[in-house]
Amino acid sequence: MASNKRGKQSFLLPGRPVITAWASVAGKKESEGPLGYCFDVTSQDTLFGQKTWEQAEKQMQKMALDTLMSKAGITRQDVDLVFSGDLLNQCIGSSFTLRNTGIPHLGLYGACSTMAESLLLSAMAVEAGCVDRVVAMTSSHFAASERQYRFPLGYGGQRPPTAQWTVTGSGAALVCTEGNGPRIEACTIGTVTDLGIKDANNMGAAMAPAALSTIKAHLQDLGRSAEDYDLIVTGDLGQLGKEMLLELARQEGLALGGRLTDCGTMVFDLEKQDVHCGGSGCGCSAITLCGELLDKLNKSKLKRILFCGTGALLSPTSTQQGLPIPGVCHGVSIVCGRD
Amino acid sequence: MASNKRGKQSFLLPGRPVITAWASVAGKKESEGPLGYCFDVTSQDTLFGQKTWEQAEKQMQKMALDTLMSKAGITRQDVDLVFSGDLLNQCIGSSFTLRNTGIPHLGLYGACSTMAESLLLSAMAVEAGCVDRVVAMTSSHFAASERQYRFPLGYGGQRPPTAQWTVTGSGAALVCTEGNGPRIEACTIGTVTDLGIKDANNMGAAMAPAALSTIKAHLQDLGRSAEDYDLIVTGDLGQLGKEMLLELARQEGLALGGRLTDCGTMVFDLEKQDVHCGGSGCGCSAITLCGELLDKLNKSKLKRILFCGTGALLSPTSTQQGLPIPGVCHGVSIVCGRD
Repeated sequence: MASNKRGKQSFLLPGRPVITAWASVAGKKESEGPLGYCFDVTSQDTLFGQKTWEQAEKQMQKMALDTLMSKAGITRQDVDLVFSGDLLNQCIGSSFTLRNTGIPHLGLYGACSTMAESLLLSAMAVEAGCVDRVVAMTSSHFAASERQYRFPLGYGGQRPPTAQWTVTGSGAALVCTEGNGPRIEACTIGTVTDLGIKDANNMGAAMAPAALSTIKAHLQDLGRSAEDYDLIVTGDLGQLGKEMLLELARQEGLALGGRLTDCGTMVFDLEKQDVHCGGSGCGCSAITLCGELLDKLNKSKLKRILFCGTGALLSPTSTQQGLPIPGVCHGVSIVCGRD
Repeated sequence: MASNKRGKQSFLLPGRPVITAWASVAGKKESEGPLGYCFDVTSQDTLFGQKTWEQAEKQMQKMALDTLMSKAGITRQDVDLVFSGDLLNQCIGSSFTLRNTGIPHLGLYGACSTMAESLLLSAMAVEAGCVDRVVAMTSSHFAASERQYRFPLGYGGQRPPTAQWTVTGSGAALVCTEGNGPRIEACTIGTVTDLGIKDANNMGAAMAPAALSTIKAHLQDLGRSAEDYDLIVTGDLGQLGKEMLLELARQEGLALGGRLTDCGTMVFDLEKQDVHCGGSGCGCSAITLCGELLDKLNKSKLKRILFCGTGALLSPTSTQQGLPIPGVCHGVSIVCGRD
């Protein structure tokens, strides 16, 4: 086994697994935001025809998977594996999507870093020669998340200015050994970083140190600088978390050279859509990647990006027990189809 | 990238990643069971010195990881990655174990199949050359699980005869590119199987069809029969689920040739320990594997086993909403150190 490991946290993918198709499903509010133009499926019905918010989330994943297979011109039989996870307790969004489909499934929990985690593992599985076609997928739903993590919407709770708005959406990407499309060429696995933030309504602050740690490790492990990337895209720190990351990077002398952007600030119009600090949830970085970013990479409008999924690893139980919020961030370097 | 994929759900590992060390931590009841002789650490204090059941679970994982590193003669710096997950909402057992350790972490959710899932992914990561040393780890805690999935223990709820007893324990295995020990040579990824079982107190029945499906796929994909294995070890169907699996196998004409056993029936004395159908929880198959099974493989008392982690992918929310319980099972073929 030739070693592709680089530094402490990173590895290269000499086979350069290729993302041959991607699909995004988004809710009403997301369809009215700046990225509304690029989603494959949008719905005015936040229940997506289902009886519960949890089933609505399952339905979005189903639609994302079906749309993905349709765009790729394949059927369930052609999919060797789905890596997926979500924010619902016991990840029922993902397991109910895949039940009785006959598609092999490995479940993940990485909070809002799940799109990056599933993409990283998909690339790893292809590189190991274990699968030919694998799907990386995740989702989140505003109403399901609110009642699980905070209060049911009917309660009418106030949202502090640091709060983010959980994206209602699902994204899926097909990673293959062969084909045309953007390619995954290197990844960095994050460590669980906790600087003691305890405010479950300020998750950007909890995740910013993890994002910094992973971006630093990525550049250091691979001997690169921010200039090697057109974009370093975190997802989803939100406005405040992004500013904190920039400040932390400045303090450590890490030049991000104006390359940094954040899915939480891309997916909504922060001025007009009343979402306070921006979008969050697994679906946030998923629909940003599987909506705009992969399209731009495919058209060579972006040459190389570092996609950094950020997750706040809290639970209502840990919050009630007075524990801080650990953060994690995984980095995936994706290059344009024609380079 | 050479293809190691075999059939629909399986793959070979030509590099044969080696399990160089393993560690198990168990609670009081588990230490009094048939496997009590082989656990590395046991505790009479079910809180493991912590204030809450959730923190006790985190503490068990910490102890399993520390014991593993000590047995392997390595430090945190030498661990490239930990794959782990647990049953607690948002997997806080795992994330709080790893916070601020500096060890890269990818979180999983596979319910009670997590030990097999983490082992499978560890082997895949080593095979891809992405890491040199990776830990597969999981845990469960009886009291934390009861209050999360059913009722707090103080409520004194009655347990029906089909119920299983969540194991208080944690297991961890170190998978490496090089070294001595049992080797992982092939894996089968499970599909999410749901035959409509809705009783959250009868999870063996919910998981048995998934176990059958994965064992069948494994043997078929690799052109093998049950006779190629000394043991086919499911974990954790319990007594009733194991009988159901045998009956389902008989109906489909699949000969298991007396090879089948189940971690849920191995870890407790079903006659004497008042656990009804046997053990369950991520920790059940984890401490059985990282206690007795890997020891026996290492000493060539077992030549080859098929370790089949089984998971019931329910959540209290899905149960309350009247949904059935999907099951999943992942298979890992492990051969003895000297073959």
